[in-house]
Amino acid sequence: MARGENTVGIIGLGLIGGSAALKLREADYAQRFIGFDADESHAQTAVDLAIIDEAVALEVLVSLSDIILIAIPVNHALEILPIVMENIGPDTTVIDFGSTKHQIAKMADKHENREQFVACHPIAGTENTGPKAAFPLLYEGKVNIICDRENSSAQALEEAEALIGALGMTKKYMNSREHDRHIAYVSHMSHVSSFILGQTVLEVEKNEQNIFDMAGSGFASTVRLAKSSPEMWAPIFTENAENVLTVVDQYIENLTKFRAMIEEKNEEGLRDTMAEINVIRKVLEQD
Amino acid sequence: MARGENTVGIIGLGLIGGSAALKLREADYAQRFIGFDADESHAQTAVDLAIIDEAVALEVLVSLSDIILIAIPVNHALEILPIVMENIGPDTTVIDFGSTKHQIAKMADKHENREQFVACHPIAGTENTGPKAAFPLLYEGKVNIICDRENSSAQALEEAEALIGALGMTKKYMNSREHDRHIAYVSHMSHVSSFILGQTVLEVEKNEQNIFDMAGSGFASTVRLAKSSPEMWAPIFTENAENVLTVVDQYIENLTKFRAMIEEKNEEGLRDTMAEINVIRKVLEQD
Repeated sequence: MARGENTVGIIGLGLIGGSAALKLREADYAQRFIGFDADESHAQTAVDLAIIDEAVALEVLVSLSDIILIAIPVNHALEILPIVMENIGPDTTVIDFGSTKHQIAKMADKHENREQFVACHPIAGTENTGPKAAFPLLYEGKVNIICDRENSSAQALEEAEALIGALGMTKKYMNSREHDRHIAYVSHMSHVSSFILGQTVLEVEKNEQNIFDMAGSGFASTVRLAKSSPEMWAPIFTENAENVLTVVDQYIENLTKFRAMIEEKNEEGLRDTMAEINVIRKVLEQD
Repeated sequence: MARGENTVGIIGLGLIGGSAALKLREADYAQRFIGFDADESHAQTAVDLAIIDEAVALEVLVSLSDIILIAIPVNHALEILPIVMENIGPDTTVIDFGSTKHQIAKMADKHENREQFVACHPIAGTENTGPKAAFPLLYEGKVNIICDRENSSAQALEEAEALIGALGMTKKYMNSREHDRHIAYVSHMSHVSSFILGQTVLEVEKNEQNIFDMAGSGFASTVRLAKSSPEMWAPIFTENAENVLTVVDQYIENLTKFRAMIEEKNEEGLRDTMAEINVIRKVLEQD
């Protein structure tokens, strides 16, 4: 069956799943898009917004889909994966788009049809959630990390790579354990620091009528991720706890040293430290 | 003398002073713009880019200008203020644009011509520095905080308010001590957390060829302020040390609690905490 005649089933119709569906539809990637969301109002909204053709029950989605995209919080993905894997046909490919990869890859390894599963992490997102936040260009030009590719069949891998390409993404390959370690630094710690900044400022400023226009101070961009979904992020932090704790501890150690330099009015030390950190400019420009 | 016939003297021809000059020129705010920068190459660049008409020595600037704008790092502003205040004519207005206000306001209070001084903080900036980073719309729609206005003369205040208006800014009034306390939360802590995030990620990622495309992960916006100028920020942190330390300690306390919830895999606690922090969305939208 040619890819354009396929049925794509999307589990989770929020920002991640909804944006994928919108883009894949634009690309005529499949003939039919069906979806399931545990929140029925989200499923209805996804139909109303033409994100999917039809909202169906999970078991119907699993039996009808040639490609299944799992786009739900990582704790729910762990719950749903066995149900999916036990009920798919022999030619179906299951692609997970969650933000942590080692646990779900380990869980998939236990299934006899493991080869039909591909563990992916699209490095893309916004601080907004739900089907109304979905937009087709979310993934454009971004990177998708395929983890443990040696455990997927050539056919499943080809399906996943075609889907990644149709989303406008480039792909990289990585071991799922390494993925979780790195993403803790780059993504998870960014979210933690942003949430804590938001919390700390709210503790004083919420009763003070926003005396400052926060938009001009650099606060708005630094705190942006503190708008992110608690439902999505709580399980990411606990699933990737070991790596996240390592980074948080290193962050606290660095912050404590910086604090000491402020207290000692060690301007030279602060300047030297910040000048070293300024290297981040080059790192970001390489992207 | 009508305002349009005035001479404006800008001390410090970087992002802050340069952007002010560009906008004021566009607005025909004064007849002549002269400037001084301790870095002679910056002064030359400012002339080349038509940011100012002429680069002059500090004492020449002080004697020729009807309005003097001080736009240099806060430690240098403290050094230069006595020289400026002792040499201005009776109708000159001196406006400081530094990011901390209590110390410079206290210093100005010692001068017999204190009334000619207006302490301002434009809540605007980017992570870039120097005259080449200057652009006329930097201040558009942003807020400028005028501190301790009761210590400025009606004439000086009027000059400062006209200049703020010409920059496209709105104005607010605040006590300089309160200003420094609030800005520590909203702006200074944002910069600290961004620098420490950059430092922590660099410690691992600089030797790893940027495995992740950082642009899609939320990292880029959260770490943006870590590109900021060490020359500007070291003295801000030490001048405002008392307030910054209070905020940093509160931040570390919040982060430590959050860390404990991750370690205990307390998903409910994490969710509840993040849901409370999500209120920041409303706070930012009020701006």
